[in-house]
Amino acid sequence: MADNMNHSSTEPAETIEPLRYLSKVEVAAIETELLRDYRFGQQQLIEIWGHACAIAITKAFPLTSLSKKQPTVLVVCGPDQNGSIGLVCARHLRIFEYEPTIYYPKRTPNTIHQDFTVQCEKMDIPFLSYLPTEVQLINDAYNLVIDAILGPETDHTDVKEPYAGILVTLKQVKIPIASVDMPSGWDVDKVTSDGINPDVLISLMAPKRCATSFTGKHYLAGRFLPYDIQKKYDLNLPEFPGTDCLIEL
Amino acid sequence: MADNMNHSSTEPAETIEPLRYLSKVEVAAIETELLRDYRFGQQQLIEIWGHACAIAITKAFPLTSLSKKQPTVLVVCGPDQNGSIGLVCARHLRIFEYEPTIYYPKRTPNTIHQDFTVQCEKMDIPFLSYLPTEVQLINDAYNLVIDAILGPETDHTDVKEPYAGILVTLKQVKIPIASVDMPSGWDVDKVTSDGINPDVLISLMAPKRCATSFTGKHYLAGRFLPYDIQKKYDLNLPEFPGTDCLIEL
Repeated sequence: MADNMNHSSTEPAETIEPLRYLSKVEVAAIETELLRDYRFGQQQLIEIWGHACAIAITKAFPLTSLSKKQPTVLVVCGPDQNGSIGLVCARHLRIFEYEPTIYYPKRTPNTIHQDFTVQCEKMDIPFLSYLPTEVQLINDAYNLVIDAILGPETDHTDVKEPYAGILVTLKQVKIPIASVDMPSGWDVDKVTSDGINPDVLISLMAPKRCATSFTGKHYLAGRFLPYDIQKKYDLNLPEFPGTDCLIEL
Repeated sequence: MADNMNHSSTEPAETIEPLRYLSKVEVAAIETELLRDYRFGQQQLIEIWGHACAIAITKAFPLTSLSKKQPTVLVVCGPDQNGSIGLVCARHLRIFEYEPTIYYPKRTPNTIHQDFTVQCEKMDIPFLSYLPTEVQLINDAYNLVIDAILGPETDHTDVKEPYAGILVTLKQVKIPIASVDMPSGWDVDKVTSDGINPDVLISLMAPKRCATSFTGKHYLAGRFLPYDIQKKYDLNLPEFPGTDCLIEL
């Protein structure tokens, strides 16, 4: 009887399913599952992501390609998880011999974020006390800006100060911007035509829906997702080369 | 007057100081400083070290070089920090498409270690309930053994069961052994001639004194140490290539 159930007709060749672009709800669901069921720690995930972001920056902007005499990078950090990823990214960039400067206007009273801050301070990475409103000063001082401001968890319809002002400034800078996970101020779920316009996007875990039409250099970073999560959410991640923690899409 | 203090004689060319081999006391001092003053988290350090160990394994034993049909690896984990590094190493090896099996006889009731364990279980990495005493079974089933059993914090003069028995078994295996940080059972501070004899040693942060005469493949892994710590302890670390998290010594 079982034999009758075999398909003797030729099976279609296995098709490669396209990479999934995640909605805001899916991002939150995956993160919850990683923390609650897979027992990843927030500190651990932020370290993995921040390190991968630093590697992406070295690929997109190698030390030898920088136009300024000093390998300066401005890292703008938001109040939540994205901001801490920015702090870790800055720390690893320092190890890779870049000269990061951090602008972190609102420090959250949360031990994890505070610890990542101290790690940077102890590495003698300078912190700016304010962001120059004169955009030319930013263009002149840095080779690029890393936007680690707002992540998928932020309500893009109600961006508060000081971040609204920062985004106005970043819209005007002429040096390249690299955004961590998603461009700050964009709607996770929709293609945005206003807002900041990064040259590089470093998607974490999987790209977000808003990245569908992104035309700059796009990296997928953070190679650690358990296979069951990848399957459950049909992520169809590409194959990462060798032991690389990221891949250019 | 100040001029008189200038040395007009030619200064000796800057000599490259040799890499420091750390004592047990120095290892403990550096770790305390990293955790207390630099505010690194234990979870964060274990993740960094475990990932770097997995990369070292891929360099020393590339998938294509393995003699067995399946890319099997036995990871033996001790009760403390070294064991958790082994768990993280196993998880990343799974991501790199190896087939790790974990033997973790004593699970410490500590949230950090438990979380790393769950992460492995949820990745469907098998855990052995006992280590075969028949060494041939180990030689036949695995391509190599990772020794993540005892670290610098363990008293080598009083290795307790089940670890004493495990070391007896590991002394007899014919497949290569890679030791995490230091070979289990060795005295941190002295060259040992008895004890297990690993083919590969993955020193974390800086090599330990016992590694002075180690003749196998020796990696220095974990590239994150703040420059002030490197200076304070005269580590004289070699220059890591590119963005690599390890270097072969």
